Amino acid sequence: MNTDKQLPEDEQVTRLLARHIANARFSDLPPAAVAAARRGVLDWLGCALAGSRHATLDILASVMQELNGQPQATVLGRDSKAGLLEAALINGQMGHVLDYDDTHMGGVVLHASSPVLAALLALSETTKASGADLIVAYACGFEAGVRIGQASPEHHRGGWHLTGTLGTFAASAAAARLLGLDEQRTVHALGIGGTQAGGMQQNRGTMCKSFHAGKAASNGLLAAKLAQKGFDSSMQIVEGNRGFCRIYSSVAAPQALVDGLGTRWEITRNGHKPYACGVVLHPAIDALIQLRKTYAIEPAKVSSISLRVHPLVLAITAVVEPRTGLKSKFSISHCAAVALHDGAAGTAQYTDARALDPAITALRLKTSAVADETLRNDEAHATVVADGKTYEIHVDHATGTVGNPMDDDAIRQKFLANAVPVIGKDRADKVCEWVASLEKQSDVSQLPVLCA
Amino acid sequence: MNTDKQLPEDEQVTRLLARHIANARFSDLPPAAVAAARRGVLDWLGCALAGSRHATLDILASVMQELNGQPQATVLGRDSKAGLLEAALINGQMGHVLDYDDTHMGGVVLHASSPVLAALLALSETTKASGADLIVAYACGFEAGVRIGQASPEHHRGGWHLTGTLGTFAASAAAARLLGLDEQRTVHALGIGGTQAGGMQQNRGTMCKSFHAGKAASNGLLAAKLAQKGFDSSMQIVEGNRGFCRIYSSVAAPQALVDGLGTRWEITRNGHKPYACGVVLHPAIDALIQLRKTYAIEPAKVSSISLRVHPLVLAITAVVEPRTGLKSKFSISHCAAVALHDGAAGTAQYTDARALDPAITALRLKTSAVADETLRNDEAHATVVADGKTYEIHVDHATGTVGNPMDDDAIRQKFLANAVPVIGKDRADKVCEWVASLEKQSDVSQLPVLCA
Repeated sequence: MNTDKQLPEDEQVTRLLARHIANARFSDLPPAAVAAARRGVLDWLGCALAGSRHATLDILASVMQELNGQPQATVLGRDSKAGLLEAALINGQMGHVLDYDDTHMGGVVLHASSPVLAALLALSETTKASGADLIVAYACGFEAGVRIGQASPEHHRGGWHLTGTLGTFAASAAAARLLGLDEQRTVHALGIGGTQAGGMQQNRGTMCKSFHAGKAASNGLLAAKLAQKGFDSSMQIVEGNRGFCRIYSSVAAPQALVDGLGTRWEITRNGHKPYACGVVLHPAIDALIQLRKTYAIEPAKVSSISLRVHPLVLAITAVVEPRTGLKSKFSISHCAAVALHDGAAGTAQYTDARALDPAITALRLKTSAVADETLRNDEAHATVVADGKTYEIHVDHATGTVGNPMDDDAIRQKFLANAVPVIGKDRADKVCEWVASLEKQSDVSQLPVLCA
Repeated sequence: MNTDKQLPEDEQVTRLLARHIANARFSDLPPAAVAAARRGVLDWLGCALAGSRHATLDILASVMQELNGQPQATVLGRDSKAGLLEAALINGQMGHVLDYDDTHMGGVVLHASSPVLAALLALSETTKASGADLIVAYACGFEAGVRIGQASPEHHRGGWHLTGTLGTFAASAAAARLLGLDEQRTVHALGIGGTQAGGMQQNRGTMCKSFHAGKAASNGLLAAKLAQKGFDSSMQIVEGNRGFCRIYSSVAAPQALVDGLGTRWEITRNGHKPYACGVVLHPAIDALIQLRKTYAIEPAKVSSISLRVHPLVLAITAVVEPRTGLKSKFSISHCAAVALHDGAAGTAQYTDARALDPAITALRLKTSAVADETLRNDEAHATVVADGKTYEIHVDHATGTVGNPMDDDAIRQKFLANAVPVIGKDRADKVCEWVASLEKQSDVSQLPVLCA
């Protein structure tokens, strides 16, 4: 049987969300949402370009090349093209491989831009889309992903990697909007997308983590393309008896899909990462970088680093001896060590070599962290003992969070640091300039070409 | 952090399963497993060929053609080729679209052959594989899918479509075996495959249901190809703290992965469907076909059809008025009506036209079914009142179950009925003959070509 149930119209929340997406226009967006989209596009492109050279992408791209030789869409930073689905997969994975991409700061730990923008950029090369079209589709995808997460409050605790699962919905919604699907077909895009949702936290610290983002992009794109041609699905992929918010979460809150829809835009609560690692670690990194800067602490003289952090930090990152760059991105002791040793936590601090560097491993072993339930997740306290002296600091709002956002110039500097080594200064500057007036651009397909 | 935990060797069940797969040889298989593989291949090819003309496949194939034009692997029954992943997706979906393909009968409701054989056939066109290689890979994929289901006892009740979720593991394992991956890479194939596992029961009765089978095939194939090149994953995708048996099931039984491994082969418990609909409905269909045959009941004179069935039947199929062929496959009243009216429940009984046929809808409204907890799931009781007379029958073991299997000739007849309209009598006979000595064939890539 079809498991859709009889529901009053106002409880058919998937349909209502689809209607919102199908009807969304650029003029509906507040200026803050447009600004957030510009910031999001620039930051994500930089992360993808920096990620394009990672060994993980070499493997993925070589397999994709073997499986498909059709040059349909640009692979960022790698001077090649791939099929539409393959390009979305590759670009989505490279956007997330460094764990440097943006994170929603409103309670749903979703890196929406990797799945959404990878799908949209690939699609933009076959459909004529303007910058305003891209912004609307991006905002709609973001909205769908975050709201479906809000409808599934225990989803993250259940063991899922939200960038894979919610990212698939987000990419489906965004691609549906860019293709101009009507309400019914947008419902189907969400239904076809959602039924492919996957990504297990078990794979944290492996190549699969960023693969989740790539698959979310390509699966979402496929869902929208199928829906466009009349492929169908349940009408209640979120709220149904066997719907997403019931089987992927022990608690269901389907009305979250529609509460304040059209008045609140979740993309305005996007956060950008100053550090290339798990976002929960950022307050502690801020603390140690500041301590080092303020007191000129010499790493070799440090006898202990003691941290008080939000409990989630230890739940996710209590690994003392990471052996690879990818694993070190989720190690509180590694992050503390590089922050204090280098005064930085960029891509250079999370390589395989750095994970095995004796200077860093020595500091890691001097680091301890305890959970403090009174702290918010953007807050941390650090105590360093060096040369017999004790230094303390408290960080109230980590850099890059909603309470302490990276400003436009900081995002631009981060983009340039990421992009210049891959596409050179001239083209990187051009991309900055182009994205700065994104809403006025008439042809988005120029963007992937600039970043090829 | 990487979420893999410290475990004694005998609890590293994913690794032990992978070792079994990597080391499996044709000579390890008992004759019953080889026979089950031959039966499985023939039956599945027929189902796929019959499904190849379904409207769902027209949509899927047209989108795939647009997304990729590389002719790498044969699309069954459609006189075309597609990329490797696309062919696996299309062939996997056509194998399951009619709900006519085989079903494991040992407690895990998995249609393993659609994901497994679609992946293996596509792969066989680029790797030189013998019939014996195919059989071993098929048996290993079957084993992995069923055992991971046994390790996750509440997975089905949780709302998942097992042919999508477990099917992804099954296809990953099978493809890993055909590619000859070592133990470590087979672990990774399972880890990359499992992290893509998806398929929601919410989509039952829609085009997405069989899409799950296709995606399982292509995702599993991709997982094995990535693992072959060194793409990594968790080493504990099943048993880990955030592993499959914990996050996709409210009860975890990881040791089921290894209990009796190598002595029991789950493929020997495969069941084949005489009817083109949900397997839980088969006992009731058997009952009504037999009643009609025995007493020459005239459909127009029937005043009531009363059924007593296993409770699962009503949980899944209590839909009275299906409006499409796909939905009618999960309607107990539709199945009862066509069984009594036509004395059959083949593909012709589950078309869109048949779902709306007034003669059938009239009988559907005269049908009632009650759950009886004392019945097994291959058992049913039927009472028909016609022309004032009452007829009763009890079916102990439905046709096609382990207790009452379809014999080789019945499977051959089913294959011919499915295949002849698509590839003609000559070629269909040739396929029967070829598969009858599958273990002696030197080149499996001949098979998809015969079924092109």
